[in-house]
Amino acid sequence: MESFLQKAKAAAATVASLSDGEKKSLLHKMAQALLHNSDAIIKQNAVDMENAEKNNLSAALTDRLLLNKERIEAMATSLEEIAALKDPVGKIRDGWILDNGLKLEKVSVPIGVIGIIYESRPNVTSDAAALCFKSGNVCILKGGKEAQNSNEIIAKTLRDVLAANDLPIEAVSLLPDSSREGVAKLIKQDSFVDLIIPRGGEQLIRYVNENASVPVVKHDKGLCHSYIHKAADLKQAVDIAINAKCQRTGVCNAMETLLVDAAVAADLLPTLKQRYEVEGTQLKGCEKTRKIIDIEAATEEDFHTEYLDNILSIKVVENVEEAVAHINRYGSGHSEAIITQDCDASETFLNGVDAACVYLNASTRFTDGAVFGLGAEVGISTNKLHARGPMGIEDLTTYKFKVYGKGQIR
Amino acid sequence: MESFLQKAKAAAATVASLSDGEKKSLLHKMAQALLHNSDAIIKQNAVDMENAEKNNLSAALTDRLLLNKERIEAMATSLEEIAALKDPVGKIRDGWILDNGLKLEKVSVPIGVIGIIYESRPNVTSDAAALCFKSGNVCILKGGKEAQNSNEIIAKTLRDVLAANDLPIEAVSLLPDSSREGVAKLIKQDSFVDLIIPRGGEQLIRYVNENASVPVVKHDKGLCHSYIHKAADLKQAVDIAINAKCQRTGVCNAMETLLVDAAVAADLLPTLKQRYEVEGTQLKGCEKTRKIIDIEAATEEDFHTEYLDNILSIKVVENVEEAVAHINRYGSGHSEAIITQDCDASETFLNGVDAACVYLNASTRFTDGAVFGLGAEVGISTNKLHARGPMGIEDLTTYKFKVYGKGQIR
Repeated sequence: MESFLQKAKAAAATVASLSDGEKKSLLHKMAQALLHNSDAIIKQNAVDMENAEKNNLSAALTDRLLLNKERIEAMATSLEEIAALKDPVGKIRDGWILDNGLKLEKVSVPIGVIGIIYESRPNVTSDAAALCFKSGNVCILKGGKEAQNSNEIIAKTLRDVLAANDLPIEAVSLLPDSSREGVAKLIKQDSFVDLIIPRGGEQLIRYVNENASVPVVKHDKGLCHSYIHKAADLKQAVDIAINAKCQRTGVCNAMETLLVDAAVAADLLPTLKQRYEVEGTQLKGCEKTRKIIDIEAATEEDFHTEYLDNILSIKVVENVEEAVAHINRYGSGHSEAIITQDCDASETFLNGVDAACVYLNASTRFTDGAVFGLGAEVGISTNKLHARGPMGIEDLTTYKFKVYGKGQIR
Repeated sequence: MESFLQKAKAAAATVASLSDGEKKSLLHKMAQALLHNSDAIIKQNAVDMENAEKNNLSAALTDRLLLNKERIEAMATSLEEIAALKDPVGKIRDGWILDNGLKLEKVSVPIGVIGIIYESRPNVTSDAAALCFKSGNVCILKGGKEAQNSNEIIAKTLRDVLAANDLPIEAVSLLPDSSREGVAKLIKQDSFVDLIIPRGGEQLIRYVNENASVPVVKHDKGLCHSYIHKAADLKQAVDIAINAKCQRTGVCNAMETLLVDAAVAADLLPTLKQRYEVEGTQLKGCEKTRKIIDIEAATEEDFHTEYLDNILSIKVVENVEEAVAHINRYGSGHSEAIITQDCDASETFLNGVDAACVYLNASTRFTDGAVFGLGAEVGISTNKLHARGPMGIEDLTTYKFKVYGKGQIR
């Protein structure tokens, strides 16, 4: 492991020194190589698909695993799009001159060696590699066991391009030991690895967070709420409540709990029940909710649950303060919305809720790097430090102070 | 511990909602209270000083521990200065409108609950509390055992002001259990604590970094280099080399190793030796150095050592590439300088060295938040993530995305 990490660290210095023109050209060649290699990639993917069947992987996971011509073309297109992003390295974020004449520049630089731990979809392998490469970083990728063969041939395809262009192949690496022990070692290597990004199940993220000595930017769950305030436009409120829950249920920015103001609950809940029935949503409610509509009871456990499914908890609250308190207690700090036409209530909510993204009169489903206009997305950070919310390629840089003097001493 | 942390988290919401006017007024009252209480503070400090004598604390540490009228006045002045800083909360860092009309604001918000672990000087207690308070955060402070009585009365003085103004006293707390076990517990409480800042000895920082599940911004050692390139203005080079080592030796931004280009070594080293002898500096050199001047041999261990003392290692290098490689191997990523008039060598060095602050033709001694113009300084971060180098009050904030809609759904 250590000799591998030493090579990765050495490669980081090389990648950091590439010009944007060189990086663009390499990423273009990598996209071409993926297309050129698509038969071989599909062949290796078939091995993973076969194993998936043997291991009774769920239909949803099996579909995410599948690679075909179209999906490989999409991977290549994604590489071209990442190549075309503005280079995040070398941006002068700030600068000023001190009284003594020293000129300070606060400049974006690559972070160094980044470990990314993820699951299932093999396109993450090429996307993550490209995002790291474009931002001047070296990546160490640890994908899911179920996609091992696909990930290996994708990584090999990208590494062959590096080798053919006299660049260190360690710039794009799969973690050599992809077992749990391998991960346990990787997250302790703070002299070689600068950042770990875990994306995936809660258990994995907790494990990494508790055991890493390398800094972690975690991509944790989204337990998102919408709160319908008494001064809401009620038609708008229903449309947003349906969209936030039902447009896509298995994603982190979907709503899991709906909070309804007591003043409008009697009016709204029957309409909402009707609309959710059309969508096939399973509803669970607090006591106050169940006095108005006849649905299953929501337990304390329910309000703590990210269903990632077509299920919704409903709770009646007395006012915006109770809504904020509930969200700050049960939410995961991801995306939270208020629906209201009242300016005071809106600002109380947007300021009081402690979350990466807070919405007025819109669906939480918009939380996404591409939708927000950040270009390709590394993921959605539930960290408060370094990067919060949709994490774009700029968040794969840090900065240094360059100080220009003419002999100043203190 | 948990009930204390719950109160601290609740206090964070209150402090975050204070206006800058309220924070200024409170900090002013805290400054007044320190002055008003100075007799009592000096009395408690005398207990610490007595214990220091009993425990044979070094003269340097004992001096750092001492509080008198002047030092308490300086603490009060520091609070007034922090009060006068521009409020870092609520700054719209960026903002744009999406095609669908959603308006995004990326706004600075407080981080929440911040644990700060530090040593010796009791003025850090009031400074750290004020920096956290001004930036809308709650602090949990863990000072050195040797300053326990001083820290307690300073914290009590500040907390009495909070209580008198109907604010939760948990906004400024000393860690209730200040033992090693208390620290061990604190750094694991990621559901209550948002950030740990360890300042102090290497061992403490390593312990926190390896065991924390709370994100850490570490303030680690400074193993700083200066490299005299062959195209340096030699008089300037000598002045900088003397200043970086000798102006103050016990600080993290002082030089520990001097790299001298082989092309100018024979010319420079005898002059340097003469100048350093005047300053009483103990010199240690590599083999090539010792062929030119008669000094003690520097071992591998020396090049890894932050002396924090009037001792200097000297190494002769062949070119800028060797200098960069040496620094990236032995340096701690703090502050590194090149002295040269050659533009290519300068940029090769400034870009190639992986450190928070890189200098051209200036002393590394300038690395400091106040000197850099950041206002009061939290410390000097040796992290790459979140904050790197001098860490000002703005680095005690994170951000959230506020998204304003008119009923947008996806």
